[in-house]
Amino acid sequence: MNVKTIRWERDEDVLVLLDQTRLPGEVVYTKCRDIASVAEAIRRLRVRGAPAIGVAAAFGVVVGVQHSRAADFASFSREVDEAAELLAATRPTAVNLFWALDRMRRTVREHGSNTVEDIKRALLSEALAIQSEDEHTCRLIGEHGAALLRSGQTVLTHCNAGALATAGAGTALAVVYQAHNEGKRVHVYADETRPVLQGARLTSWELNRAGIGVTLICDSMAAQVMKEGRIDCVIVGADRVAANGDVANKIGTYGVAVLADAHDVPLYVAAPYSSIDLSIESGAGIPIEEREAAEVSQGPGGRTAPEEVEVYNPAFDVTPARYVSAIITERGVARPPYAESLAALSHHAWEPAVTG
Amino acid sequence: MNVKTIRWERDEDVLVLLDQTRLPGEVVYTKCRDIASVAEAIRRLRVRGAPAIGVAAAFGVVVGVQHSRAADFASFSREVDEAAELLAATRPTAVNLFWALDRMRRTVREHGSNTVEDIKRALLSEALAIQSEDEHTCRLIGEHGAALLRSGQTVLTHCNAGALATAGAGTALAVVYQAHNEGKRVHVYADETRPVLQGARLTSWELNRAGIGVTLICDSMAAQVMKEGRIDCVIVGADRVAANGDVANKIGTYGVAVLADAHDVPLYVAAPYSSIDLSIESGAGIPIEEREAAEVSQGPGGRTAPEEVEVYNPAFDVTPARYVSAIITERGVARPPYAESLAALSHHAWEPAVTG
Repeated sequence: MNVKTIRWERDEDVLVLLDQTRLPGEVVYTKCRDIASVAEAIRRLRVRGAPAIGVAAAFGVVVGVQHSRAADFASFSREVDEAAELLAATRPTAVNLFWALDRMRRTVREHGSNTVEDIKRALLSEALAIQSEDEHTCRLIGEHGAALLRSGQTVLTHCNAGALATAGAGTALAVVYQAHNEGKRVHVYADETRPVLQGARLTSWELNRAGIGVTLICDSMAAQVMKEGRIDCVIVGADRVAANGDVANKIGTYGVAVLADAHDVPLYVAAPYSSIDLSIESGAGIPIEEREAAEVSQGPGGRTAPEEVEVYNPAFDVTPARYVSAIITERGVARPPYAESLAALSHHAWEPAVTG
Repeated sequence: MNVKTIRWERDEDVLVLLDQTRLPGEVVYTKCRDIASVAEAIRRLRVRGAPAIGVAAAFGVVVGVQHSRAADFASFSREVDEAAELLAATRPTAVNLFWALDRMRRTVREHGSNTVEDIKRALLSEALAIQSEDEHTCRLIGEHGAALLRSGQTVLTHCNAGALATAGAGTALAVVYQAHNEGKRVHVYADETRPVLQGARLTSWELNRAGIGVTLICDSMAAQVMKEGRIDCVIVGADRVAANGDVANKIGTYGVAVLADAHDVPLYVAAPYSSIDLSIESGAGIPIEEREAAEVSQGPGGRTAPEEVEVYNPAFDVTPARYVSAIITERGVARPPYAESLAALSHHAWEPAVTG
């Protein structure tokens, strides 16, 4: 059973998040009772991972307006817009955030003739739908992706694109979990993923908990483990995929992609279709978040560099489509050329889960 | 004035080492009065960097036998061999360790007809010679290498191949210091170099102290800064260079080399001639130290991964010669094909410093 990253507590009408900044040391759930605490949780990476950010933001809108005293549609709608704007300003790169907020705003528009209390209920339903669709999406990504893995293979992953990054089993790690469930032996090398160490703190924790063999390495060791022939494929998540297949993901992904290419190791990107942004032609159009220097110059528990030293801390990078062997979505697996294959996926109907 | 990494205290007959495990937080000098503490300092990385390890080991032999009560040559010689063996077992990759110990043993052999007290004095002289030759070597490496840098250029470096890694101004960083002294504007991007963070803790500290512009990045950001066109060349040190030009250096160097190649950025290796091991045909023959898991799974001040997670921690990697644009030594700059150019350097006489 996967860890539950995001939960809506019906009794108390609060959003419950597993505080990922405390892992792996402590498993602490934090309750968000107002929108400021949801925005803070996203900004501070208490909840992170593109799909999970989308789900959390949807519930953030619910938390933000559920106690609204607005009497008419116009003023309630304005409050929803304000809530969405506040949440949209938390992190710029993952498109799922904006996609989820758009769905929440659309829900309000579609219920223009209803009472404010009815719209509140519709917003909660929509957030719950986004959450359960994400669980279903993870399952389908796992199924499509597992077909690419053979028993005995070893996967390198970067950052955390697992259960902790979604409302379900993950994206990249859903592929691993599904292959494992199908009886395939799969081992994972996890890049520790500096500066925030999502690979060390989160990926190694959740794989270990699930009984899947995992070896932790520093990011700088990825080239060496590929050279030693230990890696059969790389699977990573995505924060946003452009129409041409360029992939924005956690800083370091681009380097891993170049190294995989140099070692003839295929690189797969696993992401929900909601991470694909056909409105952006190429990776050059994807905004890249730059985060505070302290993430780099302060290790867990101590300063790693002199205070006065300048730091550059881009949180994401863009991997050009030519380094991507396939993009695994819930609608199927896209192969190059992506301009065509991703556009084709947009016409696919939602597929039912093919579970036994 | 460069920081003094290694010093022989004549009044007390002790080896004084700057404890690099305490940097950048504290500048603490530690006195080694017996061979066990020298071996421990090398093993625990209180002193590190191939040239500095060689110098420390030479003084380690002095410390080990200076209070010997051996009455005859045979028993004193045996004590020197035992001291050298103990020190040789500390770290396997840097060839300078073995080269320095060989020089100390040769000194004993060459003084077979002298008294034990005379041989003790000869050993101290030899260690001091190794130290001052290293200072001179650093200066020459700096001069040869600075010719490769133009004003306004930006250098990426990995790990620490600076004053802290040698008895002088460093190897890779000697090039930067010399270019700076010649009036060239040079900026350095320093990979933080997990797991031990020599780039964050040491390189950024010593460059900052020397007034040279430095930007600290995580190892996983090297690809991105190259892609953004920020880097004109990579300069790294070496722990051992094989006869064919394959270079063993800090883990992550190989990855940086592949990335530099993919971005058409030249990669230079700066190392004393004593790091070149013509007895080893290729990098495949260089022993690679694997260090304890805790270096990876324990960050400064806290655990970064669950205790039960497996870790792979190779401390070095080998960069094939085809990725190396030039090898800068005190005897001159070797270019491919290295089998010829490195062999040719072995015939070069020691060159005097060309300082003004």
